[in-house]
Order: sequence, then C-alpha cells, then structure tokens
Amino acid sequence: MSQPKKVCIVGSGNWGSAIAKIIGNNAVENPSKFDPEVNMWVFEEQVNGQKLTEIINTQHENVKYLQGITLPEKVIAVPDVVEASQGADIFIFVLPHQFVKGICEKLKGKIKSTAVAVTLIKGFEVAEGGGIRLISDVIRDSLNIPCAVLMGANIANEVALENYCEATIGCSDTAVLGTELKALFQTAYFRIVVVKDETTVEVCGALKNIVATAAGFTDGLGFKDNTKAAVIRLGLMEMIKFCEVFYPGSKLETFFESCGIADLITTCYGGRNRRVAEAFAKTGKTIAELEQEMLNGQKLQGPPTAYEVNYMLKAKTMEERFPLFTAVHRICTGDLPVKNLMDCLKNHPEHIKPSAVARMSVCYNP
Amino acid sequence: MSQPKKVCIVGSGNWGSAIAKIIGNNAVENPSKFDPEVNMWVFEEQVNGQKLTEIINTQHENVKYLQGITLPEKVIAVPDVVEASQGADIFIFVLPHQFVKGICEKLKGKIKSTAVAVTLIKGFEVAEGGGIRLISDVIRDSLNIPCAVLMGANIANEVALENYCEATIGCSDTAVLGTELKALFQTAYFRIVVVKDETTVEVCGALKNIVATAAGFTDGLGFKDNTKAAVIRLGLMEMIKFCEVFYPGSKLETFFESCGIADLITTCYGGRNRRVAEAFAKTGKTIAELEQEMLNGQKLQGPPTAYEVNYMLKAKTMEERFPLFTAVHRICTGDLPVKNLMDCLKNHPEHIKPSAVARMSVCYNP
Repeated sequence: MSQPKKVCIVGSGNWGSAIAKIIGNNAVENPSKFDPEVNMWVFEEQVNGQKLTEIINTQHENVKYLQGITLPEKVIAVPDVVEASQGADIFIFVLPHQFVKGICEKLKGKIKSTAVAVTLIKGFEVAEGGGIRLISDVIRDSLNIPCAVLMGANIANEVALENYCEATIGCSDTAVLGTELKALFQTAYFRIVVVKDETTVEVCGALKNIVATAAGFTDGLGFKDNTKAAVIRLGLMEMIKFCEVFYPGSKLETFFESCGIADLITTCYGGRNRRVAEAFAKTGKTIAELEQEMLNGQKLQGPPTAYEVNYMLKAKTMEERFPLFTAVHRICTGDLPVKNLMDCLKNHPEHIKPSAVARMSVCYNP
Repeated sequence: MSQPKKVCIVGSGNWGSAIAKIIGNNAVENPSKFDPEVNMWVFEEQVNGQKLTEIINTQHENVKYLQGITLPEKVIAVPDVVEASQGADIFIFVLPHQFVKGICEKLKGKIKSTAVAVTLIKGFEVAEGGGIRLISDVIRDSLNIPCAVLMGANIANEVALENYCEATIGCSDTAVLGTELKALFQTAYFRIVVVKDETTVEVCGALKNIVATAAGFTDGLGFKDNTKAAVIRLGLMEMIKFCEVFYPGSKLETFFESCGIADLITTCYGGRNRRVAEAFAKTGKTIAELEQEMLNGQKLQGPPTAYEVNYMLKAKTMEERFPLFTAVHRICTGDLPVKNLMDCLKNHPEHIKPSAVARMSVCYNP
C-alpha cells in the first residue's frame, strides 16, 4: 500500500474553486489514497478590506470567484505557491494560461521529482516564433514531470451546484495514474472517462473556441438552427483534421468524449466567445472594443487561438483546407467581412470525400 | 448520354415543398440530366374553398404548408399518386411515415422497373410483432427498387429561405446513383455529402428523437448546459452502440455527418420532441395530454421510437447497456419518475471503456 498522495491545486478562480470542492471532498473520503488536507494556491487579493486567503480559510468560501458554495474545510488557501507546493505529489493546474510559465519558474527545482501534474487549462501558449504550444508541454518541460489533462463540458458554477456532467481525463498512463486521477476527480455527479490520447483532449479544449466564434457569427448574422449545426459540424471536422496534421496519432474516438463534441456544443450555445462574436456581427465593432465593453477588458480565447492556428496553417500552406478556421481569423482581424463567412464554407473540403475522419478510422491502431 | 431522368416527389408537406423548390430549380438548370418538369403528389385538400393542387399549379405556392415561398413553375401538383408517378425514374418519398405503406401499395406494379427511390422520412415503421423496420426497407420490399436516404439538420422553413446548411445522402451505390442524387439535391446553400452507409444515415434520423426527448427532460428539470451536453453525448453513444448491435457494418464516421451529430444538436435544441418533453417534466401531464394541447393532436416521434427500440433491447436483454434509451421509454410510459433520469446515467457503460466507438474504429474496413 503506497502512502496517501498530497494534492496541491494551483489556482483558485471560478473553475479552480469548483474543482477544489470536488477534490477536497474526495480526499477526505479516501484517506488511504489521498492526504485529506489539500493546499490551494491563491493569488492574494483584498476583498472588502480582508485577505482572500483568510476569508477562504475561515469562511470556507471563495467569495470573489465562487460565491455561495461551501468549500471543504481541509482545502487550505496558501498565498505563496512554493509553500503551497510543499510535499505535493499531484499538482492541479487551473489558472489563466498566461500565468503558467511564471508559476512553473517559481516551482522549478522545489518540488518532488516523483510528482505528477494535471492541467485543467483550456487554451494554448504561443510558441517561440509563433504557432501554438500545449500548456501541458510548458508544465512538462519546465518541471520535468508527467502532465495529464482534464477537459469537458464543465461550466464551473454548474459543477459547483452538483449538476450531472462528464469530463475527460487524457493520460498516457491510463492504468496507474489514470486510475488514481479518476478516484481524485470522480463523484456521483461528475463522471470521468479516462483516455490515453492526452494531446487530443487538450487540443480540443483550445480549438473549440475558434468554432464557437464562428457559431457566434452565424447567430449575429441572423442564421438559425440548420446553419449553426452545419458550422459546428464543419468546425469539428477541422478540429479533427488539425489533429491529424499537427498531432499525428490522435484517435478519432477522443472527439466523441466530453472534451470533444460535448464541450464544443456547450461552448457554441453558451460561452463568451459565442456571445461576443454575435455582438461583433451585429454591431460592427472590433473584438477589442467588445472585450472592453462586454468583458470588462478580459480577453477572448477564440480570436488569438485562430491567429496562432492560422500561423501554423500558413506555414504549411494549408489555409484552404481549413476554410472555417481561416475565415474566423480573417474576420476577427478585419480582413474579411463577417457576412462573407458562409461563402467560405460553400466549397468546404468536407463536401468532397474522403475526409480526415475516414482516414483516421482506417489508421486507428489500438 | 442517357435520357434526362423524370422526378416524382411523393409528398407535399412543409419539408416536401421545401425540397420541391430545390429539385424543381435544379431540374430546370440541368436539362441534360433531369426532365425540367417535376411531378409532386399532393394529398388533395380544400384551402379557402379551393383545391390545394390548383393553388399550387396557379400561384406556385403551397399556401398551407410552406407559406410565402415561391415554388418553381415546372413543379406540377398532381392529386393522384399513380398519375403523378407516370414515367418517373426517381421517386422522392417525403410524407408522414404512416402513409408510406399505403402509397407503395398503390404504386406497386405501376412504376418503371428501373426506377430508384430516395426517402427523406425520419422515423421507423413498426415491424410485424414489434420492433422497428426501416422506411427504406418498406419501399424496397414493396416496390422492388433501390432506395437511398437523405437526412440532415434541415428545418424545412430555413432550407426554403436558402439559409446555408448540409445534408447527408446515404446510398449504397455512391458512384452512379450517389452522384446523380447529389446533382439533383445540391445547391450553393444546401451542401450534400454522399456516404455508402445508408442504413446508419436512416437510423440516425429516427433515434435522435429519443435523445431529444431526454434533452427536453433535462431542460424541464432545470438542468443547464453541462448536463444537457452530457445527455446529448451519451445519447449519441447509445445511437452508435445501437447501430453496432442491430445494424452490423455501420461506420463510425457516418455519425460525424450532418445526419449524425448536426441533426442531433439541432433536434436537441429546437424541435418539438424537446419542447414537449420539457413541458412533460415541468407540468406532470402525460405525453398524450401534451400532444393534444401543444401539437393539436399530432403525435411525437420520440416516445413511440423509444417504445419500439425498447422492444428490441428487451428481446436481447440489453436494456442495461442503453440506460438513456431505456429511461426515456420508462419515463414516457409513466414507469419511472422524470426526476430519476440523471440517476439512470450515473453508471453509464460509456464511463467504463472500451466503448462501441473504440470497437467500431478497430473494426472499420473501408
């Protein structure tokens, strides 16, 4: 019997707090597997004249990012990330992606060499010179530890309210680490499927925002259910083709998991990328203006992801094979009128077989 | 060069009239391939004291089922189905499924032996003794001609307004008949993909209504995006598994076509099965009561499809492997409280791998 594993949650926003509730409760219920005390790194802020960490540690509520939800008492908010990481065996990365590099720098050389990580961060890092870099690779390369991913149709507030949903864990070591992570995350209402294909799980979580931007454009242009369904489907086909080209070995069935179609659907119907893209098509304002107006200056993920993906497509002269991704990029940068979106999809390569889907079915080798 | 083919549209409701607009225009534009004159069988009704066929043939509008849309002048409404079928090479079946058998009886022995059919009918026929029978099989067996299918995320009014969308043609002879049908149906806004796997295309069009019923229940129970996405995904997994069990040879990639995920999404967000199921969960009324109140007595397709599918699952003692399909059936018949829906999905077989998806990937043999 191995020692109970100590968990450290790196991040404490809306999603980080919701997941802290799950992990904190599961750790207490499985003391043979996990240390019941779970550290959560909190970026220190003042809330109503009090430190956020103090509020969390006394009131057991993240009053700023997840109001009204009681966190387990043994989830301990720690303002210093190195202190929070002491003795940790499992790191849960759940913070805005722009902070990952800096946090990893601080942790470098100060964590157990046997530690493992899971990233819940949806999005890409910009690679040096352009293009995309996986967040899990940033973590792996920086800390020299394995890094699994957890993605799915998981709006944080709904998870915190214990509404039934699913998530996908991508983990190259499904047997040992995958089983351990499933025990850490799964509850009666939060159902986990573990798959080996960790890269595809992660890539889905970022590419979906490009598709949601396109879906928002169709909403803003006044198109209805048929058109939106076509845009979601063609977007999914481009996600699959993108994985085929840039991440060979991706498995078609991963797209059927929660990280694939389920998260895509949720993001294309709810979600702020869709919402702002709709306003973009309706008002003619720029993305930057709308971010200021609608998101209090916070940035969308769809447009920059489309930009970085376009960099990679251009480098391979493959823009024409990805008309939806390419059109979203050109529309966001003002290079193409949004009303021309549907024209770009009229001769979609998916309308000429065989597609990537057929090829990946053939190539599948368990 | 073969003779131009003569087309007969069997049916003239909302969807039949929308498709008559497309076919009529394409026939005129491709006189070398198709006879520009297209017969449309119309079930004769009186509208404002005038015959519906006369209105269509003079005003070129189906004022009862597709108001405001001009039909091509060479689409000729014919009240007698045998007369409408004279000389036809291609039959388009687009009428309520309960009338298919009777219409085929009338056509039997009176059509060209070289004719072919396409069915646009979403739903199953009840097999003798129970279970399901494909509409295409009813047509094939009765008329002794090949029968392709066309399905997709195609709300008729949106297609008639020329909003961009996609459809899937399932046709075992993709090379000759598939190419001909693509020429007959495709327009700049109505994009067609032809696949060989015609059975799966047709089965998707019926099973989706069971999933939409479940999606409506979650809406009525007050669940939000996460839960609904999980229900749609698990429903899709059961559709795939159902095809694996009952229609061996089904191809996984067919579910990625418009007839699969796209139509499923549209039906689970719009559509009357979802709407009535939501009311069912909210009001506690029976399905029959709600059909009377909300649909003017018209019947839903989800509950009877769930019933027939359950008959087949029971016969193979497979109800437990299809918890969503089974729960929808039990809820619709009053055997299970709707609030227990999510409980039935907590130990879904999809949460234990390997799934049908993985198996079908492995078995795929182009």
